[in-house]
Amino acid sequence: MTTTSAPISRRMAQISPFQVMELLTQAQQLEQNGQEIVHMEVGEPDFPTPAPIVHAGQQALAEGNTRYTPALGLPQLREAIAAFHYDYHQTNISPERVIITSGASAGLLLALGVTLSPAERMIMSDPGYPCNRNFVRFLGGEVDSIAVGADQHYQLSADAVRQQWQEQTRGVMVASPANPCGTLLPFDELKKIEKEVAARDGTLIVDEIYNGLSYSDSGHPPATALTLNSDHIITIHSFSKQFCMTGWRLGWMVVPAALVREVEKLAQNLYISPSTPAQYAALAAFSTETLTILEQYRQQFRQRRDFLLPQLRQLDFQIPITPEGAFYLYANSEKWGDDSRRLSQRLLHEAGVAVTPGSDFGSYRHRSHLRFAYTTSLEQLELGVTRLKQFREKL
Amino acid sequence: MTTTSAPISRRMAQISPFQVMELLTQAQQLEQNGQEIVHMEVGEPDFPTPAPIVHAGQQALAEGNTRYTPALGLPQLREAIAAFHYDYHQTNISPERVIITSGASAGLLLALGVTLSPAERMIMSDPGYPCNRNFVRFLGGEVDSIAVGADQHYQLSADAVRQQWQEQTRGVMVASPANPCGTLLPFDELKKIEKEVAARDGTLIVDEIYNGLSYSDSGHPPATALTLNSDHIITIHSFSKQFCMTGWRLGWMVVPAALVREVEKLAQNLYISPSTPAQYAALAAFSTETLTILEQYRQQFRQRRDFLLPQLRQLDFQIPITPEGAFYLYANSEKWGDDSRRLSQRLLHEAGVAVTPGSDFGSYRHRSHLRFAYTTSLEQLELGVTRLKQFREKL
Repeated sequence: MTTTSAPISRRMAQISPFQVMELLTQAQQLEQNGQEIVHMEVGEPDFPTPAPIVHAGQQALAEGNTRYTPALGLPQLREAIAAFHYDYHQTNISPERVIITSGASAGLLLALGVTLSPAERMIMSDPGYPCNRNFVRFLGGEVDSIAVGADQHYQLSADAVRQQWQEQTRGVMVASPANPCGTLLPFDELKKIEKEVAARDGTLIVDEIYNGLSYSDSGHPPATALTLNSDHIITIHSFSKQFCMTGWRLGWMVVPAALVREVEKLAQNLYISPSTPAQYAALAAFSTETLTILEQYRQQFRQRRDFLLPQLRQLDFQIPITPEGAFYLYANSEKWGDDSRRLSQRLLHEAGVAVTPGSDFGSYRHRSHLRFAYTTSLEQLELGVTRLKQFREKL
Repeated sequence: MTTTSAPISRRMAQISPFQVMELLTQAQQLEQNGQEIVHMEVGEPDFPTPAPIVHAGQQALAEGNTRYTPALGLPQLREAIAAFHYDYHQTNISPERVIITSGASAGLLLALGVTLSPAERMIMSDPGYPCNRNFVRFLGGEVDSIAVGADQHYQLSADAVRQQWQEQTRGVMVASPANPCGTLLPFDELKKIEKEVAARDGTLIVDEIYNGLSYSDSGHPPATALTLNSDHIITIHSFSKQFCMTGWRLGWMVVPAALVREVEKLAQNLYISPSTPAQYAALAAFSTETLTILEQYRQQFRQRRDFLLPQLRQLDFQIPITPEGAFYLYANSEKWGDDSRRLSQRLLHEAGVAVTPGSDFGSYRHRSHLRFAYTTSLEQLELGVTRLKQFREKL
């Protein structure tokens, strides 16, 4: 029974593509054919990596720092991150619990890999980060999505977690600020969720990769789950978004002390070590010079949000809550039609505006939602709004 | 039923640490205490990344090439690799089938991820690369190890594969040259194994990360599985060993056309993209200047093998076959005692020589074997041999 190609594992039938990356590829193909596209699809800062980080990376290469590091990461970077959490969040974390990862992607796989057994279930919000459900399925787990809308601040609640919890439930995944809605999980609610999870001996994975990108008037970063110092919490962090280091593929996680050795074993096998040049570069991520640059970026993101939000509302996109962070607006597009996937294709091909359909983030009301990323300049956002207006007039 | 720490997934009980990385950590701790260690444990070239690659990496950083690439990798790098296989192996591979990965580690996880379902079985040799069995277990699969010794050239055979194959067997993993024994899988045997696997609709994963590190008198690289052009073969390649780019975390795989889309979906979710600076750096890996440097490295590895092999044999380590490639000697240490793990600890602490015990590579006769890596200078190897002699005299 020879066939003409190798058969495919059963799990792949459950793994969906990361649509926004596909949309980006489509947009880039159009650009190669001479079309100009306004990019509001991809969750990647348009700002360059801050110069001090770039210089540290170049210096690392010049000094030959290109060999494997320990699987848990460079000790001096783990210490620098612990110090950053102390300075930035007034949180005392032992460097031993800080584990450097190949992006938040590796952090999520390691966190689930050491805690979730096959057939166990993870609770997460719908909409939410697309890859989360695919990580769970990849490991043979099951996803329990809880639909969240504006009434829920687009976030899980302790009540919802309690109601959803089943015998096979292993834990809960939350993000704050969250992709695609940009809302924060209120800290009191996070505390309550942690209590529910801890009472059931579960794991709470808290994605804080957008923690540095929030736009409160106080200027303070939002509270972090690290301050709860819970043996049931794993936090996921990244250099990608806040530090504008997407392509470097570097992040970190903070795990309970009892899990460090397990994560180390798995990381040794799956990754050997994170990128060495990226780790040396990241040593410059917490300098005053870098943090000053990042604060300027944050202000620009805020200006963009404050421009784009009212413009989209005027265009009949409904955005009931002003998102506190990240760089996304998740908009109800019902008044533009009942199929946001088709709408995003038309906007790309007919208006030259790339936005991501709700279907990338889950199934709850996905046909009536689009995600706009303000990861491009104010000028481009203005151009995008103009094109949306012109397209609407022709509808 | 609150506990004081998050419980650990069932799969972790099956995942063993990568011992050589642990040994390296031990050795480094001794060094921090002022001891001088001869490093013959770690499978990492001591040579620096060739200057043209380093310069291309620095240039990429200077030009701001630090954002995500497509999940399958930079198109120009995929083309450069296809051209390299044509020049180096006279093999015509479509760039579409070349997928850039975050090291061979990612290639192995992706290859198994898209082909192996839970409870299915993979056949591999014992001894073999330690992480292979852990990748399979991580995915819920089962490992069928076939013991191989000098009589088998430390490699699988088509006969052995046929005898081992069960209903739940999904495929076979081989490496050529192999870690830890350094032997080649004869090309005729590879062809026969492919026939067995294809007849059973399975997948043959061929690890060729040491392909460029072989020491035949002809100077030609060994034949590659790519020339079989089989829909049942996935080949795994790496910039780490041959190109001295370990810490950059970059490799590639060549997959049947029918699997490209599946690997893309999984790579998008698990990795987003490989390191961008590393990919731009690797564009300089196939230049004449780089290849000239690498040929000098290869000659030095050969000199080291030709020095160390007879020295170890004189010291009553039995190495019945002269390994054709990689940078390892897998030695029977029976005459030094019946517990190679204890022996490696004594050699590290009492003689200042770090070597890896057989237990890292499997369970077949592991207590009577040590792996010596000649990834350090001739001077260091000489010092190591002297220390081994002195230690032996005191035994």
